[in-house]
Amino acid sequence: MSGSGLIDVHSHIVPRQLPADPTGGRIEKWPCVQCHSATSATVLMGQKPFRKIDERSWDIARRVADMDRDHVAAQVLSPMPELLSYWLDAAPATELARFVNGAIAEMVAKRPDRFYGLGSVPMQEPARAAEELRLVKEKFALSGVEIGSNINGKYLGDRRFDPFFAAAEELGLAVFVHALHPLQAPHLAAMPTLVPFAAFPVDTALCAASLIMDGVLERFPRLRIGFSHGGGAFGPILHRMEHGWRASGRFDGKLPQSPRSYAARFFYDSLVYDPHYLAHLATHVAPGQIFAGTDYPYLIEQRDPAGFICSVADVVEHGQTLWSGAARRFLGLDLE
Amino acid sequence: MSGSGLIDVHSHIVPRQLPADPTGGRIEKWPCVQCHSATSATVLMGQKPFRKIDERSWDIARRVADMDRDHVAAQVLSPMPELLSYWLDAAPATELARFVNGAIAEMVAKRPDRFYGLGSVPMQEPARAAEELRLVKEKFALSGVEIGSNINGKYLGDRRFDPFFAAAEELGLAVFVHALHPLQAPHLAAMPTLVPFAAFPVDTALCAASLIMDGVLERFPRLRIGFSHGGGAFGPILHRMEHGWRASGRFDGKLPQSPRSYAARFFYDSLVYDPHYLAHLATHVAPGQIFAGTDYPYLIEQRDPAGFICSVADVVEHGQTLWSGAARRFLGLDLE
Repeated sequence: MSGSGLIDVHSHIVPRQLPADPTGGRIEKWPCVQCHSATSATVLMGQKPFRKIDERSWDIARRVADMDRDHVAAQVLSPMPELLSYWLDAAPATELARFVNGAIAEMVAKRPDRFYGLGSVPMQEPARAAEELRLVKEKFALSGVEIGSNINGKYLGDRRFDPFFAAAEELGLAVFVHALHPLQAPHLAAMPTLVPFAAFPVDTALCAASLIMDGVLERFPRLRIGFSHGGGAFGPILHRMEHGWRASGRFDGKLPQSPRSYAARFFYDSLVYDPHYLAHLATHVAPGQIFAGTDYPYLIEQRDPAGFICSVADVVEHGQTLWSGAARRFLGLDLE
Repeated sequence: MSGSGLIDVHSHIVPRQLPADPTGGRIEKWPCVQCHSATSATVLMGQKPFRKIDERSWDIARRVADMDRDHVAAQVLSPMPELLSYWLDAAPATELARFVNGAIAEMVAKRPDRFYGLGSVPMQEPARAAEELRLVKEKFALSGVEIGSNINGKYLGDRRFDPFFAAAEELGLAVFVHALHPLQAPHLAAMPTLVPFAAFPVDTALCAASLIMDGVLERFPRLRIGFSHGGGAFGPILHRMEHGWRASGRFDGKLPQSPRSYAARFFYDSLVYDPHYLAHLATHVAPGQIFAGTDYPYLIEQRDPAGFICSVADVVEHGQTLWSGAARRFLGLDLE
């Protein structure tokens, strides 16, 4: 593959079929794909319809045609976040994750010139997640994993996740953080429309803040972590943390480096829907660390990603890294 | 007063003395100022120490000296947010608010060339808050009020607050929104250091989003609302809302104007701690609607506000409004 074509790091898949609940139907939120036609299906969580999807979620030829239309050289495939299934017991969740990882690996194997893959692991049991990472790398040959911004209510800075981060660092796997079941959603119960627009970016931001504040990048300096949606609402929070760190004696000595310096080591996708804010991130938050992402094939997708990225790449330093350079470093492609 | 000197819209006061709990000690969180010396005191909430303060909180001469040092022509005085006391019964909270409003009015009366004032009203009972606004204007001659980003867990878009907004609009009073008791704080219990840096800006942002999404600016088109800390984390959330509005048929027809167009009618203070992000707000979110704010006299204060504002004013269109133009419009000074 050319090293310079646009790489879309943020795109999702759902396999056309999912395995049956291994308990024979006793797991309340086991996911299921109910096919209506060759091009239409509904994902159910247990009995409850979750989302209507179409063949773009599983059909390689359709995806490649759309990528050709959009000037996307390669997509990174990751599970639809709701499939991460942190709310299931770890044993069946592991079976499900392996199945989905296998489906992604198969799509990548069919068009290795156009796809990379990020799998999933059962973060509800961090030691098991750490073990599964080995399979992600060795059996499924994926580039890393997608994980939720919080795991059943715990942000990722929590020490319980250290075994996972240690393994990801050791194996050189990329970690892509995606908002999932935001903790703020209940506070917006009176305005459900606001949840996807406000609660999701807030959860991503608080996750990033927790990783910095709890020293994850201090403990695992070679870890490669990327945030979907440009880190959500993280930018303005980072600026305030930076000021607080300076005004409070490095948070009373608790944080050796400045929040900005950690934030500049994270990766972020370009999915912020505003070229000026993206230019702010790319210039003043994390130069060289922004990769393209679209959320294909969902409603909130960034259309014409090449045009969007182009409008920003021309005005920022390191603009060329937006196309593929940051993605290649995040995915570890040039280490191979 | 000169129309062009720097106006700091975000500064707080605590009166040197507060009235005694009118029930004779039965109100758990009644605030009290315990003086240690002429220049040092502790604010208690009931028996519990809340914050150490010094004479900058009440001493006019000291404030004016600091303003002279900082090239600040005028400060807008508002209560330390914890004094807003939404957690008290409305009757004693109203007594307290009137006392604090009187203290602010007295400071303004002593140096009308250097101070403007924002009072407080008992938002826990919106009809009473609406009535009190009349006193704020007619008895205390203040420019408006400071209110919390949420009122005992309800964001300001909630219809229960309509009587307050109707009265503020009718009376032409400015409404300054300040983060208070953020709803996200409990989710950050494992990282208390993060609360002031992350939960506060999130609460301000969700408040702004709720005001837009629930149509407050539609119902009260002449309302002047300003947000502290540049709207907190609102910028990136707004960009996502804007995309969602376009992708979803104006949120299924629920929101007639675009989120951006409402956001451009809000005011925001400059207290974002990063000149580049401030330039983003001033250029791409709300041109001409950003006023200076420092959070004087607290730890998180923006020092050298003139230098900070200057570094931004030179690079944005409408840069001159940062100094005083937006503040004067927000406060309604040129309507008098």
